[in-house]
Amino acid sequence: MKIGIVGLGLIGGSIGLALREPGREIVGYDPSPANAELAKSRFCVDSLAPLADVAKADVVFVAAPPLHVLGVLEQISRERGPSTVVTDCTSVKAEIVAWAEAAKANWFVGGHPMAGHEKSGPGFASSWMFRNARWILTPAPKTDRSAIQAVEALVKSMGATPVKTDANGHDRQVAILSHIPHVFAAVLVNLGAGLSRTDISGGSWRDLTRVGGVDPDLWSQILMGNRMELVKALTETEEEVHRFRVALEDEDSATLHEILVQAQRAKKAQES
Amino acid sequence: MKIGIVGLGLIGGSIGLALREPGREIVGYDPSPANAELAKSRFCVDSLAPLADVAKADVVFVAAPPLHVLGVLEQISRERGPSTVVTDCTSVKAEIVAWAEAAKANWFVGGHPMAGHEKSGPGFASSWMFRNARWILTPAPKTDRSAIQAVEALVKSMGATPVKTDANGHDRQVAILSHIPHVFAAVLVNLGAGLSRTDISGGSWRDLTRVGGVDPDLWSQILMGNRMELVKALTETEEEVHRFRVALEDEDSATLHEILVQAQRAKKAQES
Repeated sequence: MKIGIVGLGLIGGSIGLALREPGREIVGYDPSPANAELAKSRFCVDSLAPLADVAKADVVFVAAPPLHVLGVLEQISRERGPSTVVTDCTSVKAEIVAWAEAAKANWFVGGHPMAGHEKSGPGFASSWMFRNARWILTPAPKTDRSAIQAVEALVKSMGATPVKTDANGHDRQVAILSHIPHVFAAVLVNLGAGLSRTDISGGSWRDLTRVGGVDPDLWSQILMGNRMELVKALTETEEEVHRFRVALEDEDSATLHEILVQAQRAKKAQES
Repeated sequence: MKIGIVGLGLIGGSIGLALREPGREIVGYDPSPANAELAKSRFCVDSLAPLADVAKADVVFVAAPPLHVLGVLEQISRERGPSTVVTDCTSVKAEIVAWAEAAKANWFVGGHPMAGHEKSGPGFASSWMFRNARWILTPAPKTDRSAIQAVEALVKSMGATPVKTDANGHDRQVAILSHIPHVFAAVLVNLGAGLSRTDISGGSWRDLTRVGGVDPDLWSQILMGNRMELVKALTETEEEVHRFRVALEDEDSATLHEILVQAQRAKKAQES
């Protein structure tokens, strides 16, 4: 089986490492020669090839930055082999799935691995990146069943659990489950910029700011790509923060306590 | 040397475990018999005693909930031995240090271990809680030098690093370094309460919500105790969140990118 990977960054590189197995040939493409060579030297791919060749693999993973994904998919749709299955890793799905439906690209399965971390590039790629992670798939009603099955099998072989959902539901959920956490982390480190020292902090600061310095190029694309859902979630955030502030200003311990009780209840429900 | 601990919860219990050593006798008090017995059964203390007796130890750690600390300190100031040194673990310091100065309690050293986690009670206490943590001390100008030295020595013997700062600076810093992260985590789990599922989340959600369900009784006291600094920080938070929202609403990628560049720069500075 031949696997193609377009985009050899943290995610694309990790897919290559996670899929390495006798009998699988992994061929990759990245527009940056430095990225491509680093990925090859770390054995993320068996070989490098032009996009037109990578597009002819049995299954192609597109792990390009959000703004480039539709362009890459257009190109793959012209160059792919007759039975090539294509999936992507983009963290916003509605627009891409709408493109696939309009293009009658039934060989395309929208995907989003719920994994990654605050470092970027193939230098930080690892074979265990997706172990125990959820990997969301957003097939459309007309997506080929065999294409879905092929992607699911590969996702499982990387140690992840495929979870199917619709593209709009996905975008709403990740706005709160992933994008807002990244916004909060950025807000927090920006608040901390005014402090003379942060080295006296404890575990909550460490955890809440871990993803506070993620790649601005990538994350401005991700956040802008999900702007409709994010504006809703941020409006709600402003209201919640305001509720905290007013309770403190008014010395209203009962309301403050009640907000924290709600949070404790929500946290418990989310853990169960 | 005899160590007294008033309040045998997560922090008080952990102090007991961290200080256990031949030649040290650790005696504890907790108004809840269940807490006290659990702490004793887990060897957090050698014995239990009434507050009046615990107050006569060489060094007393007060690890009571914020609203009870001043009452406990009043009582200790009446019952303490002639050379008893007293410190506390409260996460807001200005009010307590002001009390000590007014009461001429030069035997008192304000303290705040930058450690803990989302669980509470002596059942979760551990001897390594303070290892590699900072332990802030906020002595006043007239605090006895020997009292400071005694507390510093014990803090070091628990594996923590004592850091001296003034009480007002402390309160401003922990507002952003500890209290705001807890507010953000609570806001986030409350946002997530509207979702049908959170099990598809990844690492950023896990980290950002870890402290989202902390004890409402304790944390409403902590947050209310630092309300002046928190109102300032929350006002700034609302502005920052608003800045994100407007950039997204206006499809203003340049501003969004710039906010993330600021965050990346701040994060780097905070790590160095």
